[in-house]
Amino acid sequence: MSIHAQVSIILVGTSHPGNLGASARAMANMGLVKLALANPRCNPLDETAITRASGADHILRDAQIFPDLATAITNDQLVYAFTARRRGMSHQILDVRTACVDAVTQISNGVRLAFVFGPENTGLSNRETDLCDHLVEIPSENLHASLNLAAAVQVASYELRMSTSGTNPVINSTRELASKFEHQQLLAQLEQIVKQECPPRHSGLRNRMLKRMALLLARAKPDKADLRMLRGMLKLVTKLSKN
Amino acid sequence: MSIHAQVSIILVGTSHPGNLGASARAMANMGLVKLALANPRCNPLDETAITRASGADHILRDAQIFPDLATAITNDQLVYAFTARRRGMSHQILDVRTACVDAVTQISNGVRLAFVFGPENTGLSNRETDLCDHLVEIPSENLHASLNLAAAVQVASYELRMSTSGTNPVINSTRELASKFEHQQLLAQLEQIVKQECPPRHSGLRNRMLKRMALLLARAKPDKADLRMLRGMLKLVTKLSKN
Repeated sequence: MSIHAQVSIILVGTSHPGNLGASARAMANMGLVKLALANPRCNPLDETAITRASGADHILRDAQIFPDLATAITNDQLVYAFTARRRGMSHQILDVRTACVDAVTQISNGVRLAFVFGPENTGLSNRETDLCDHLVEIPSENLHASLNLAAAVQVASYELRMSTSGTNPVINSTRELASKFEHQQLLAQLEQIVKQECPPRHSGLRNRMLKRMALLLARAKPDKADLRMLRGMLKLVTKLSKN
Repeated sequence: MSIHAQVSIILVGTSHPGNLGASARAMANMGLVKLALANPRCNPLDETAITRASGADHILRDAQIFPDLATAITNDQLVYAFTARRRGMSHQILDVRTACVDAVTQISNGVRLAFVFGPENTGLSNRETDLCDHLVEIPSENLHASLNLAAAVQVASYELRMSTSGTNPVINSTRELASKFEHQQLLAQLEQIVKQECPPRHSGLRNRMLKRMALLLARAKPDKADLRMLRGMLKLVTKLSKN
């Protein structure tokens, strides 16, 4: 399957070149390249558009331009219409995450699909959403339901990417964690120091202190270098106390 | 738990008022309200900012302004730094989805947290990310890795909302995490002790040691009692060295 070849972003009746540029950037960030403009009301190669594209102006230059949504989608097999307005009638509304999970299944079956976004002020008309297979909503606050156009493209492209790649929760970790034996060595060293100062009648306090330290250490998930540093610090302290 | 009261978005060194406005709008869309600006390089009430906020200008008007990140986070207990650049050292990098799942658990435990975003051109400096507990990455294309600032705020706020709405019961903890101010106090105390013993020509070593300690402390997510214990231990050590 190929996200590049099979997914189009279609922007309908866009007025602000900044939004075209920012949408192109959002697409490039997430690995999408096919942009179509249906009845655009501004120049996609306007200076503002190019600036906001921030290096993704190839997407603007390659954008296909159509007179309306109907002609823009002729080559697509499945069309998702993004909307902030609740509508009556027959369409089922999906949230963007559900829609993207569905889309990825479709893509892996070889389907060519489009995500469609309406004009900044009005959104898609009912006549336009009637051309689409699904209505998609980005969950948001009732009082501030309407996302900026490029922000909506960003969220949709991001979700599509997340649905495509199996998540990879922790991205980086070359740290070699210390062994429990190394924890114990450190705690023993610490215990000695505490014993030196804390009188035996305070052994309850001392034990609670050491236990708290052990828990803290466990949560910190120290690596080997961390442990060396901590032991070095304790040695330094011991030296101090002998001066 | 309250997303409104417990989550701050902190923008560091922002240059473009349009990004401030668009970030405020993105926050409002997703139900966030607390914005802090650290060393802003433009006027948050500039006409462009207000226009791009599109009705969310109350967030700009209420934004708290700080000279730098260190002062902006003093009241927070857990800080997530968003970054597109891979860095060295021992910070664990989380993807934004994993970070938000973690954040929601923390929020439900009463923790006050911040999502931090750097300047448009450079991102956060290493000195700034060192102040934070986690590095967070928004998965993206290698060749176009860097999202627009407001787009990044949009994705993060959206993910946080998605993680919140799906929340399943989490194990509640009664631990009250220490504030960053308390971390800083401890680290200052530690620095003094290390300085006593470590000769000035070893200041590089000393700084690496303290930096490693700060990272370790952040990972351990100490609560207020842990901090009291650690400071008590340091006092004890200081006493030892004076005997």
